[in-house]
Amino acid sequence: VKSSKTPTNHLYEGIISGDRRALARALSIVEDDEPQAAELLDRLFGRTGHAHRIGVTGPPGAGKSTLADRLAQAYRAEGKSVGIIAVDPTSPFTGGALLGDRVRMNTVALDEGVFIRSMASRGSLGGLARRAQEAADVMDAAGKDVVILETVGVGQSELDIAEAADTTLVVLVPESGDSVQAMKAGLMEIADIFVLNKADREGANRAADTLKAMLHMREARGWTPPVLLTIASKGEGVEELLRSIASHLQFLKESGMLEKKRKERLTRKVENIVLDRLRSEFWDKQAKEVLMATIQDKPNSSVSPYQLAERLLEDFRKRHRSEP
Amino acid sequence: VKSSKTPTNHLYEGIISGDRRALARALSIVEDDEPQAAELLDRLFGRTGHAHRIGVTGPPGAGKSTLADRLAQAYRAEGKSVGIIAVDPTSPFTGGALLGDRVRMNTVALDEGVFIRSMASRGSLGGLARRAQEAADVMDAAGKDVVILETVGVGQSELDIAEAADTTLVVLVPESGDSVQAMKAGLMEIADIFVLNKADREGANRAADTLKAMLHMREARGWTPPVLLTIASKGEGVEELLRSIASHLQFLKESGMLEKKRKERLTRKVENIVLDRLRSEFWDKQAKEVLMATIQDKPNSSVSPYQLAERLLEDFRKRHRSEP
Repeated sequence: VKSSKTPTNHLYEGIISGDRRALARALSIVEDDEPQAAELLDRLFGRTGHAHRIGVTGPPGAGKSTLADRLAQAYRAEGKSVGIIAVDPTSPFTGGALLGDRVRMNTVALDEGVFIRSMASRGSLGGLARRAQEAADVMDAAGKDVVILETVGVGQSELDIAEAADTTLVVLVPESGDSVQAMKAGLMEIADIFVLNKADREGANRAADTLKAMLHMREARGWTPPVLLTIASKGEGVEELLRSIASHLQFLKESGMLEKKRKERLTRKVENIVLDRLRSEFWDKQAKEVLMATIQDKPNSSVSPYQLAERLLEDFRKRHRSEP
Repeated sequence: VKSSKTPTNHLYEGIISGDRRALARALSIVEDDEPQAAELLDRLFGRTGHAHRIGVTGPPGAGKSTLADRLAQAYRAEGKSVGIIAVDPTSPFTGGALLGDRVRMNTVALDEGVFIRSMASRGSLGGLARRAQEAADVMDAAGKDVVILETVGVGQSELDIAEAADTTLVVLVPESGDSVQAMKAGLMEIADIFVLNKADREGANRAADTLKAMLHMREARGWTPPVLLTIASKGEGVEELLRSIASHLQFLKESGMLEKKRKERLTRKVENIVLDRLRSEFWDKQAKEVLMATIQDKPNSSVSPYQLAERLLEDFRKRHRSEP
């Protein structure tokens, strides 16, 4: 597998030597789940663990892309390399990308030190978290100091991002204030830092106060999410945000939380690989045929899906037993 | 398993004899995935296939609950029994239920012939589609003529609903018109009927025309989704909608699509049961211990998640082989 002749090896060398085309190709392989994805990720694994993974989530229109771009600029000014993964759940009803949320700043898009990748994920239930993480792994292995995972917060995706990130920013606008009560349960759990963007709009301070009051009711866990005001379009508040992100990273390291988070991520990763493998082993030609034949023959017969599943599982066990 | 002494049997008898408390209990068992869920669903399976399953999806604020209630009323007037399953993905950013979307009409809520069930699903990635379907199975087995599956359309949930339903209504408001272009890809695929609700608002006719124009560009598949105007709060347009739903059901039956859809649903169901079983068989005490020990010892070691998964799978195969 690790022969120097394989295409994967060539790609691997390209990625770790900083070749942008190799990186782009690798991200496509991961996103499309091409056959060589596992081998490539396997090889890159030993190179990961360096990058700080920052999740940026929040409702459509909160200015997440602009903020992510400003963060990238600021990190670049510090001499750090940056990867941005813009995850787009492409719900027909929210349609972030399509409504122009993804129009990036030119300065960032043209900077060689910033690598931007959009991932659409419509229809890939459960795959979003995994693929965003794998894309972050690739960028991490490619030597990026910071990987920003940005998503439109709909349905499940904000949880996916929090799972994939070390530090999660929840970006709101002053008008979100009214619904803050309603959002309580979900956001308090995933936010490491709250950002009230478009802070020149009316009600920003009141919204910040409400958030802070709610945060006081949360149980203490060593880190209380700060509430920061920004105007991303003008770059205001970005420096303070950067300092706050750095503080959170320091907290994660000192408290042992960073290691804990990464171990949990690794655990889920192994569980997912196992499940994928089991599924493809199980559904061989024979099992598929039994399933098809039974359902075609008698869709609403006396054979319930549970009985059919049980029969197929029994066949699977027999096959395993008879193996050498 | 099917002894008349089991609690499941008692529940089963209650459900098919129309006992509301038994139905409520069965829905809780399914929603919470209690141990007896599989046995119960297994028994109920032979009783399913009667109900027409109608999905109602669309953006927050489109009036889906009101429309679902009006539909329920109209079906009741025809002497049909109705179940409503209100699925709420409870995203912190959309928060349908919390924003009062779920305030139901009294007339419907008080009608003994209408059974309403809310299902919250935050954090149950992948579980939403399954549990909504199982709840529909239970209502179907309980003899409901119509089961309405209603959801806030965010992220993945509109696909889940389309998968669980025979007929899918996509509910929009005139103001959605602007974004219609953006919505194209997703909605055209899942909508069997478009409903423009709040049709007394400005731009309703224009929005309807835009939708119709877009539908013409879609490839023909024997059924072109009609675009209907309603004012659900006043009950206007509901009768026509009912006729349209009935036409769609007739089309499904005559074209063989109903059977095809149901077979596909059954296929996915068997696949999901198998996957659940494989997962729980795989992760026995020993496998969990190996996983924990390896990751605790050396989180970023030379053992990649792929190698670890492979080792665990090999152990699993050995265990199977040595079984009697």
